[in-house]
Amino acid sequence: MRKKIKKINAAILIIGNEILSGRTQDKNIAFICNWLNSRCGISVKEVRVIPDQEKIIIDNVLHLSKKFNYVFTTGGIGPTHDDITAKSISKAFKLKYEYHGEAYKILEKYYGKKKFNDGRKKMSKMPEGAKLIYNPSSAAPGFMTKNVLSLPGVPSILNSMIENCTRYLVKGKKVHSKTLNLYTVESNISKQLGSIQKKYKQFVEIGSYPFFRLGKIGVSIVTRSSSIFKLKKVNSDLIKLVKIKKIKVLKT
Amino acid sequence: MRKKIKKINAAILIIGNEILSGRTQDKNIAFICNWLNSRCGISVKEVRVIPDQEKIIIDNVLHLSKKFNYVFTTGGIGPTHDDITAKSISKAFKLKYEYHGEAYKILEKYYGKKKFNDGRKKMSKMPEGAKLIYNPSSAAPGFMTKNVLSLPGVPSILNSMIENCTRYLVKGKKVHSKTLNLYTVESNISKQLGSIQKKYKQFVEIGSYPFFRLGKIGVSIVTRSSSIFKLKKVNSDLIKLVKIKKIKVLKT
Repeated sequence: MRKKIKKINAAILIIGNEILSGRTQDKNIAFICNWLNSRCGISVKEVRVIPDQEKIIIDNVLHLSKKFNYVFTTGGIGPTHDDITAKSISKAFKLKYEYHGEAYKILEKYYGKKKFNDGRKKMSKMPEGAKLIYNPSSAAPGFMTKNVLSLPGVPSILNSMIENCTRYLVKGKKVHSKTLNLYTVESNISKQLGSIQKKYKQFVEIGSYPFFRLGKIGVSIVTRSSSIFKLKKVNSDLIKLVKIKKIKVLKT
Repeated sequence: MRKKIKKINAAILIIGNEILSGRTQDKNIAFICNWLNSRCGISVKEVRVIPDQEKIIIDNVLHLSKKFNYVFTTGGIGPTHDDITAKSISKAFKLKYEYHGEAYKILEKYYGKKKFNDGRKKMSKMPEGAKLIYNPSSAAPGFMTKNVLSLPGVPSILNSMIENCTRYLVKGKKVHSKTLNLYTVESNISKQLGSIQKKYKQFVEIGSYPFFRLGKIGVSIVTRSSSIFKLKKVNSDLIKLVKIKKIKVLKT
């Protein structure tokens, strides 16, 4: 009997006024979604961006952590007054907000005893019993509280430490995808695409996304499935459609 | 007596599997947040990214439209099977999902009677009584249903039509902001920054964001307020701090 592989899902909670004000272009959503998909077979089902406000963080952490297998938070774990993620998560789960022994030692060693001021010490305060997510680029660790993994907001630092999350994650079945780039417009194939989607409803998800490339208009047809076999079948149907309609395929 | 200007807020609902899969890097969040802030004095208080699934769209549209003055949806208003935003919003508000007379005419004129196929006609189906948001780049209009404004997902098209939303929006008080880029690390100023934030708690929001530029580490201190006067006051306090700490300011 084949082992049944579970579907594992996650949500991302971006904590940061700088994203909501439009000052900063978020890069963490696409990065985490991609990484979870390709590396862990985990599908992100919802993303929320919220301000640095305790009550809002608490409400969202509680809601999302009940609804999804994992929640990834980004932002708000630095040394300044607006970094309130660790404290808010502690309150959400009714855990003490306290110095984490190992995190404290890591930071003390990194900065040296003399330069280890209050702001830097704050970065080792976490919810009681949190597990560390090591940070190879700027020392201050992320942490996991129950099913919530907290990472920093700075993309380069987040990227450098994401691999250190794997040890805490149960992997799911990998979702495979295939993209067909066509020189046509969506409305030329929308009817047939709808029929193909209906035929493979339970197994394959078909997305259609217009693109503009070198002055030409096209459509990317993206098929996604955990079954490579079904993915091949749906793509052979798509190729038939392309031939009937005499549509040029863009080779990538 | 001075006229009291209301605080107006909004939420953004990004509808699209392509963002959740990590395939597409979202560009609409930052663009809409920036535009609403600078052009309309409207603050975005929450963003959600959700999949192309009817029930999820309905639940989120209802929740956000009750909670915020405006909701901007992006994505899912094209001609293909996965474009279900208009139908889902109709169901959410228990409105008929029907051809919009003016939208139908616009699209028929744009494509010509012969090429006006079912997929293209679909783009003129909207919730009963929807108001059009004209689209100068690819004709298919967005629409407003109650306090929900629906725009396309393709950034270049969205950008071209956003100005056509203004007629439907009540403007709020503009939020001004000032950024001070400092060659220092957050933990060097976190304590003093916390005190300054406390002093101006009700009037000014202070954010602190690390940056890496040309191999140097720095911190951007962003202050935001609807009062220019208070913004100037908090920035003079910040300049004092910078002088005491002998921190180099990066001129931009």
